[in-house]
Amino acid sequence: MGRSKGNGKLFLIPTTLGDTEPWEVLPISIKRAIEEIDYYIVENERSARRFIKKVSPRKSQPDLHLFILNKFTEPGLLPSYLDPCFKGYHVGILSEAGCPAIADPGADIVRIAHDRKIRVVPLVGPSSIIMALMASGLNGQNFAFNGYLPIDAQERKTAIKKFEKHSGDTRQSQIFIETPYRNEKLMKEFLNTLRPSTSLCLATDITLPSEFIETKTVKNWKEEKIDLHKRPTIFVFQA
Amino acid sequence: MGRSKGNGKLFLIPTTLGDTEPWEVLPISIKRAIEEIDYYIVENERSARRFIKKVSPRKSQPDLHLFILNKFTEPGLLPSYLDPCFKGYHVGILSEAGCPAIADPGADIVRIAHDRKIRVVPLVGPSSIIMALMASGLNGQNFAFNGYLPIDAQERKTAIKKFEKHSGDTRQSQIFIETPYRNEKLMKEFLNTLRPSTSLCLATDITLPSEFIETKTVKNWKEEKIDLHKRPTIFVFQA
Repeated sequence: MGRSKGNGKLFLIPTTLGDTEPWEVLPISIKRAIEEIDYYIVENERSARRFIKKVSPRKSQPDLHLFILNKFTEPGLLPSYLDPCFKGYHVGILSEAGCPAIADPGADIVRIAHDRKIRVVPLVGPSSIIMALMASGLNGQNFAFNGYLPIDAQERKTAIKKFEKHSGDTRQSQIFIETPYRNEKLMKEFLNTLRPSTSLCLATDITLPSEFIETKTVKNWKEEKIDLHKRPTIFVFQA
Repeated sequence: MGRSKGNGKLFLIPTTLGDTEPWEVLPISIKRAIEEIDYYIVENERSARRFIKKVSPRKSQPDLHLFILNKFTEPGLLPSYLDPCFKGYHVGILSEAGCPAIADPGADIVRIAHDRKIRVVPLVGPSSIIMALMASGLNGQNFAFNGYLPIDAQERKTAIKKFEKHSGDTRQSQIFIETPYRNEKLMKEFLNTLRPSTSLCLATDITLPSEFIETKTVKNWKEEKIDLHKRPTIFVFQA
């Protein structure tokens, strides 16, 4: 299965953001890719198997070959993960949630695929970053995703101010993520550090029944009580 | 149809990138939204009607209410486009291609929805920016979308060098679009201005049968012949 005439390709296969019905957020091309592919590069074996089973319940799990790619993976191993392509098999990368190679360790393997002349095929699925930005009403013609802010309190404050100044100078929207159990702390720091007139969007539990997406000025957020604790959240601001 | 008990919501409805089979790139929630909604904010009436017809052939076209949002739209008109929400009707925003409010004029209406306490619901679909970035193998943990570069030759050169320096300092991937008939010119300017060691990804005709996505160093691109003329392309580089 999944053996093609020439070299196999590397498919970038998005997954759901949390426990939703797959076909609410994924097109049917994802089902076809999963049914066709037996070689996967994944962050976590258990959740990858669970996702594959949900998308294609009849697929044989014992026939799957899963290569683990996380921060503990020896970089020297990565090129071998693509060896099946040279035997004519497609390989898929699955992210833990959303689009692979965005805000996760997948990009290195994609770069190796280009270097080895393997064709890379991105499929469509939910990106919490893009969905937060489109729903924020903030500038979608100029934006930066900055990942995590520094942990150290003073460095973090300096970074927030720097990004706010840059946003004010360029109208660039600034996008951040945080480890969900630290969301409330980050929100407090944004409210204490950003200017009252800066617009801030919280996009929480995107695509889930508890989805919450609102944009207000910092001044107006200060009057609200919100519960972000352990809920996956994207923060977007524009000065 | 599409009348809800409380206020209606604003749905952000992605469309296909060019003339592909919708269900290859859109989840079924798009069909349900289109079938339920009669009020749309669109850039171009004709292409919006064509998309709606493709997604839901049996939907009554004469019952559709289309509000036009493009660069000629009087900003003072925008709040009225959301008035149906207060009568309990959902409103949808459609982009010409891909995700609304990203690299198009939709963000203003989304911001007005937040200000008027209308719930904003982003749906999943293809974003050429995110698909290019995930398939590029360049840094997906820190990236900026910069839209169009300046037209003036000297300003453009200065801007390219500035973004390259920033990318070198921060490892931030830099993403750009261009009007398709000017792609070849921009490519020439990238090759003349960027350092030989900078990595450049061209992502052309994403999701179409002619899809072409490759990442090489500037030095290696100089040895290639490629045809980008009038083909929608996303450019990503990382120094």
